[in-house]
Order: sequence, then C-alpha cells, then structure tokens
Amino acid sequence: MKGTVLYGPRDIRFEERDEPKIINPTDAIIRLAVTSVCGSDLWPYRGANAITEPSPMGHEYCGFVEEVGREVRTVKRGQFVIGSFFASDNTCPHCQHGYQTSCMHKEYVVGAQAPFLRVPLADGTLVGLPEAPPQDLFSSFQAASDVFGTGWFAAEAANVQRGMTVAVVGDGAVGLLGVLSAKIKGAGRIIAMSRHADRQKLAREFGATDIVSERGDEGVARIMEMTKGVGADAVLECVGTQQSMMQAVRSTRPGGGIGYVGVPHGVELNGEDLFFRHVKLHGGPAPVRHYLPQLIELVLKRKINPGKVFDLVLPLDQVAEGYRAMDERRAIKALLRP
Amino acid sequence: MKGTVLYGPRDIRFEERDEPKIINPTDAIIRLAVTSVCGSDLWPYRGANAITEPSPMGHEYCGFVEEVGREVRTVKRGQFVIGSFFASDNTCPHCQHGYQTSCMHKEYVVGAQAPFLRVPLADGTLVGLPEAPPQDLFSSFQAASDVFGTGWFAAEAANVQRGMTVAVVGDGAVGLLGVLSAKIKGAGRIIAMSRHADRQKLAREFGATDIVSERGDEGVARIMEMTKGVGADAVLECVGTQQSMMQAVRSTRPGGGIGYVGVPHGVELNGEDLFFRHVKLHGGPAPVRHYLPQLIELVLKRKINPGKVFDLVLPLDQVAEGYRAMDERRAIKALLRP
Repeated sequence: MKGTVLYGPRDIRFEERDEPKIINPTDAIIRLAVTSVCGSDLWPYRGANAITEPSPMGHEYCGFVEEVGREVRTVKRGQFVIGSFFASDNTCPHCQHGYQTSCMHKEYVVGAQAPFLRVPLADGTLVGLPEAPPQDLFSSFQAASDVFGTGWFAAEAANVQRGMTVAVVGDGAVGLLGVLSAKIKGAGRIIAMSRHADRQKLAREFGATDIVSERGDEGVARIMEMTKGVGADAVLECVGTQQSMMQAVRSTRPGGGIGYVGVPHGVELNGEDLFFRHVKLHGGPAPVRHYLPQLIELVLKRKINPGKVFDLVLPLDQVAEGYRAMDERRAIKALLRP
Repeated sequence: MKGTVLYGPRDIRFEERDEPKIINPTDAIIRLAVTSVCGSDLWPYRGANAITEPSPMGHEYCGFVEEVGREVRTVKRGQFVIGSFFASDNTCPHCQHGYQTSCMHKEYVVGAQAPFLRVPLADGTLVGLPEAPPQDLFSSFQAASDVFGTGWFAAEAANVQRGMTVAVVGDGAVGLLGVLSAKIKGAGRIIAMSRHADRQKLAREFGATDIVSERGDEGVARIMEMTKGVGADAVLECVGTQQSMMQAVRSTRPGGGIGYVGVPHGVELNGEDLFFRHVKLHGGPAPVRHYLPQLIELVLKRKINPGKVFDLVLPLDQVAEGYRAMDERRAIKALLRP
C-alpha cells in the first residue's frame, strides 16, 4: 500500500509502505473509511518538533475492521469502528478515572494517513457501531476521533456549565469544535476569538454568539470589556503557544476554569501570577476514548455536524496538498479519501 | 498603643504606634481577643520579600468590635467578630462566586499584631457571632481567620471528596489544617509529608493515616509506591517553593487535583510537563471569608480543635520571640495575647 511519511520540514511523501500486520494478539487492523490531517501534524511539518527519521503520519481514524488478533473480543471483522490517537486498555486505574490518554499501557497510534492502520489494544481503544453508518456521517465520526473529542475535553476541563460565558482561544478545528461543545453544554454566551472570515462564519454556525478578532493584550481587553471587567467563566485554550495560554489565563475570572488542549510549545507559567489570578487550570491530551460513546450518539442523532470543519476534501494520494492548504491557512482541515 | 513592626530581616520591633482610627465610614476598629504570627510573615522576616520601609505586621485576627463607621450595618460595638487577611465587599461578582480574596475592592488588612486593628469594608469582611464565645475557643477562631481557612481552601481547590487518597505537602499550620480539612471532608487516606516528630503527631491527631518523611524525588517515589503507581487523588500544596510544587504535581494521578495555597516564591511551571501529567491545578489566596460561616459552626460545635496548631502562647509584647521560635522551627505557630 501507499502511506504518508514526513521526511523533514514541509517534506511530506505519499510512498510505498508495508501493509500493517497483527503484531500482538490484542491488535486490530482497520481499513480506513476516511482519514485526515490534524492541526498537531503541522507542528513537525513546520519544523517545530525535530524529525530524526522518516515518520509515518496520521492519528485520526474511523473505518472497518479488516482483521483482529486472537484475543480481541469486542469488535469483529467488517464492523465500523472509531478510535483515537492513544491506544488504551480502558481498564487500568487511569482509564477507570476517565483519563485513557494517560493509560498505564498507552501506545501512540500512528500511520493513519494510509488505507490500512494497525490499532493496538483494540478492545480498549475502538468503539464499534452496531451497524455501518451512512457515508455522509463519516466526516463527523472522523472529527469525533480527535478534534471534536479534543474540543469537548477543553469544555469539560474548563468546567463549562449551562448559562456560562465562555471564551475560545484558537479558531482551528479544535477551537471551532470547542465552540460547538460549549453550545451543546448550554453555555449562555460563547465568544470565539478569530481573525478569519471563514472560521468566524463556522464559529457562528456552531453557536458562537460573539466574535473577537483582537489578540494578545487587545484580545484580553475586549473580553474584559464584554464581561464588564469580570472575565469569562470558562476559557478554552486551543493553540498551545505562550501568547494563547496567557490570553486564556488573563481572560478568565477568579475561580473560572481554563481547559487547555493545544499541545504546549515553549509555554512557561509563573506560579505567583497564576496564584493571584485564582484560575483553575486543567488540560492535556484529550481522553477522547472516554467521550466517544456520547459523541457518537450525538452524531448518529444528527443533532450536530462536527464534520463541517472539513472544508477541503482530497483523495488520499494528494495528502501533501492537504498539509500545504492547512499550513497556508487556505483550509481549516483536510479530509482524505483512501 | 504598642504594635509589631518589621524593620528588616529578623528585625521585629514591638513599638509605640498610633491607635487605628475610623478612616472610611465602612471601617470598623476591633480590639483583638488574641493575635498570632503567620507562616507567611516569615517570608519577609527571612528576607525573601524585600522590606522597603518599616512594615506593621499581622493579618490574622478575631476580637471585639470597638467602634464602627457610620455606614456599617452588620456588626456592632461589643460584638465578637472574625475576619481575614483581605477585606472584601462581599457583593461584587468575584465575591458572589466565592472568591472574596479577588474582590474588586479588596484591601489588605495589616497591623493585627497589636491590641487594636482597623478593618476596612467591615460589613463584607467581618463575620459576627450572636454572643461572645467561651475564651477557650479563641485560638480556634483565630486559626479560622487564616490558616484553617487556607487549609480548607487547599482541600476545596484540590477537590477532596469522600473516600479519596489525599497527600499533604508541608507540615506548617496550613498543611496540618489541610489534613484536618481533608478529614472533615471524608478523605479515606490522608498522607502527611512531614519530617518533624511534633508535627507528625499533630497530623495524626488531625486525621493523617500515613506519614511520609521523605521529600523531593524520594517523597514522590513513596507516594507512588503507597498508591500502587497511581498517584494521589488530591494533593494539598502548602509551602510555595519550586520543590514543593513539583512534589505535588508529580504525586498526583492524572485527573487528580492540586490545591496550592503556599504563596509561590520563584515557582515556574512548564506547560508541556503539566499538560502530559493531566493534573488539575487550582489555588491562590484562600477566600477565607467564603468559608468562615461553616468553619465557625464547626468550631462552635466543638467537633474539631484547629487551635491546636498554636503550640506556643506568649504575651503580645514578646512577639519577636514568637517569630524566632517559628523561624527556628521550635514552634509550629505562636498565639499572642494582647
């Protein structure tokens, strides 16, 4: 088969690779229904993370079970399944507490920008549907696999409750789906921080009541003005830079929550500053597995359409164009069809 | 009157000062029943905070109302009252959310190591008792004014729930009262981290089930061993150094809470590390005012005795010895009698 490999900054190749095989008896091989490029793939693509060897790419996936190892019990050949970027046993104490991305036996799932993918710990990792869903829902399930689950966790971690004023820092797919998550959770006012017309439009569709285009100090000043000097009850930090994190910290009211899900790159927090701001901070790699059953149900009921974040659809062999379009901000997110 | 003034590192003087007067119509003057030295007074005493001018000391207080400004409505002359280190209006949005120490009109209360004290925003700040309590409860009310309220907030901020495993970093008065707070909240296992026999003893009296005398890496290793590699559900950080904060962060399970109430001195948190540890972080200056009514009730019912942290009682004019004894760790906490 051909799969996607990153060789160096902006050097994405779609090249011949070995088809994945069952290695452990708890593995499954899945045939991808669709696949996609994640905002976090852009960190190494842009050279922000060192690339020491050619790296297979892709960690967002849904599709059909092709083969299972002999110990796999909960999913079977032909079944439609959704997983996420960390394989987890779903039984260890951390999984039991709902933190599957800190599973004591977690393994990173990688190589999903390809026709086939090996998923370790299949019973703990994959959520199967009783029957194959209509094809028009594939993109929303694909979103649930990572960006929707991550936006949802941001809202959970920030403790979004009915009626609250919520600000969302970051207008990538995760930020936009953070808006949608806050809406589903009943937030009263949702302020999306975005400078791009297309993303502002989608943010409004997802439930944003206000748009703030300013950033940094000016962005904070706008939030404070809009909340009469109080600050937002909950802030979703969906970028991962020092600027975005400080924008979140400074936009939150004392006692308010910050859910941070953008992988921090060079972020340092001053203890004394955080102390006197009185904010609550929680985040990390989203335990998507924990939320998948509820997200799948929301999608199946067609109450929401998180798949709308995919504004570019390409055949898988044009994956390099998907990366380019996202890097150049011509696209929010690229869906790839194998 | 004579009051306590810090002139420089380890230079505490008990000297003639003006008696406090009503300045604003919302002020009250109280005559202190007892007063005390706070662990946080040791930061400037030890020179960790710069002292640019002679500073009146003391911010823990309970006593009798001596005089009120013409706008004060809720407390009256002769009434026994308890307050805390920040005056607050108790009506602004932050106060309404339970964060009185971030009150939009907050004022630091200082000068309590003296016979009389001016308390601004008396209606919002002071909690009055219907009748004067027995003298043997004064020390527990004095503890409620700061260290008990702060230990309580640490347990709240760390989200201590019934049955949880809780670790407490720091064996000062706040840490010890964090142990008591966790006990009152029904924690199943309370691990006090302490190297001093007298403090270990009091920790056990307050409800600690286990004592860990190791610190830093070794302390973390002990907690992990005791929790079968999982980490504590909640950790109370009651010191404020980089070492104690990292000890807390590294002892907490993914999804577990850290309540940090030691004023951070030189603490820096790495965003990426915090992200992958999945911990919840909340802290700040404890909104003691918010908790005073419940703490007062607990004390009045004599179910608990937080005043036990005072293991040294001195006449107020020997305040300098109180500082010395705490600095040299000869005493946990000094109660001063005016």
